[in-house]
Amino acid sequence: MKKIGVLLGKLYEESEYSEPAKAFKDAGYELVHIGKEKGEEVFDKNRENPVKIDAVAKDVSPDDFMGLLIPGGFSPDVLRSDDSIVDFVRNYFTLDKPLFTICHGPQLLVTAEVLRGRTLTCYKSIIVDVKNAGANYVDREVVVDRNLVTSRTPKDLPVFIKASLKKLNE
Amino acid sequence: MKKIGVLLGKLYEESEYSEPAKAFKDAGYELVHIGKEKGEEVFDKNRENPVKIDAVAKDVSPDDFMGLLIPGGFSPDVLRSDDSIVDFVRNYFTLDKPLFTICHGPQLLVTAEVLRGRTLTCYKSIIVDVKNAGANYVDREVVVDRNLVTSRTPKDLPVFIKASLKKLNE
Repeated sequence: MKKIGVLLGKLYEESEYSEPAKAFKDAGYELVHIGKEKGEEVFDKNRENPVKIDAVAKDVSPDDFMGLLIPGGFSPDVLRSDDSIVDFVRNYFTLDKPLFTICHGPQLLVTAEVLRGRTLTCYKSIIVDVKNAGANYVDREVVVDRNLVTSRTPKDLPVFIKASLKKLNE
Repeated sequence: MKKIGVLLGKLYEESEYSEPAKAFKDAGYELVHIGKEKGEEVFDKNRENPVKIDAVAKDVSPDDFMGLLIPGGFSPDVLRSDDSIVDFVRNYFTLDKPLFTICHGPQLLVTAEVLRGRTLTCYKSIIVDVKNAGANYVDREVVVDRNLVTSRTPKDLPVFIKASLKKLNE
C-alpha cells in the first residue's frame, strides 16, 4: 500500500494533523505515525485527540514513503530534540521526496539544516529562524518549491491539502 | 522598589519561573509579569500554577527594571509572535541591562535579532536556531556574557539563580 509518514509529537496542532490525514487516507494512502517512542499516545495542544505512534525514526526508511507530513503546534520542537528524527528528516528531504509542512513544522527542517536557498512559508513566530537558516520566506497561503509544500496556519489548510495531493500525483 | 520584569506566556516551564522568581523576591525585588494580555492568567506546561499578567509590553519601559527574566517552556515562542514584546526585548537588551534566560528563552532573543557575536547556552532543540542567529553556543550549565546570563534546563537552576543574583549585585 502507498504510505505517507507523519511526524508527530505531543502538543501537536489538531487540525494540521487531522485534516491532511483524512485527505491522504481518502486518497488511498496508509499513514505511518513516526515519533519519539513506539506505542506512545501523543495528544494535541488541548490534551485531546490521542494518536498512537507506530514507529520510531530508526524503524523506517525514506524509501517506505511517498510523502512526509509534519503538522505544527509544539510537536516539531518536541521532535527535533531527538537526533534520529532529525537525521531521518534530513535523509528524506535530500532525496527530494514530497514533504508537506505547516505552521511550526519547518523548525524540524531548520534543525536538519536543509533549508539553505529554499523558498517557503511558515508561522509568524519562526520567520526569523527560517530566514537565519538561509531560506527565502514568503507570506503566502501555500508555497510549493520542488518537493516542499508549506503553509502558515490552520486557515491555509484547504489550499495546503490541495497542493499536497497535487504534488503526490506528479 | 527594585523591580525585575518577567516575560511570561502560556505553557511556561514551571520551575524555570517559580525558582528564580522566589530567589528574586527573597532578595527584595518586586516582580512585574509582562505578557500578551493584561490580567490574563497564564498556565505552565501541565496547565497548572496560573500566574496573572501585570502588564503588556507597551505599558513598561526598560528603565523600570534592574533585570529581566525569560523562563523557558513554550512560553518564549508564544510571546515572540507579539511584535511589541519583541521590540521591548530588543530595546531592553541593547541597553546592556541584565537579562536572565534559560531553556527556550533565547528564542525571544533570536527573533529580536540581538544575538550576533554573543556567547550563550540554551535547550538542545534550539541550538541550531541560536547558532544561525550568529551566537556562539556553548554547552555549559551557566554562561555569563556581559549582561546575559543563560542556562540549559531546570537541572541548571541552582547555578543559574546564583549567577543571576551575582549579576544584579554588580
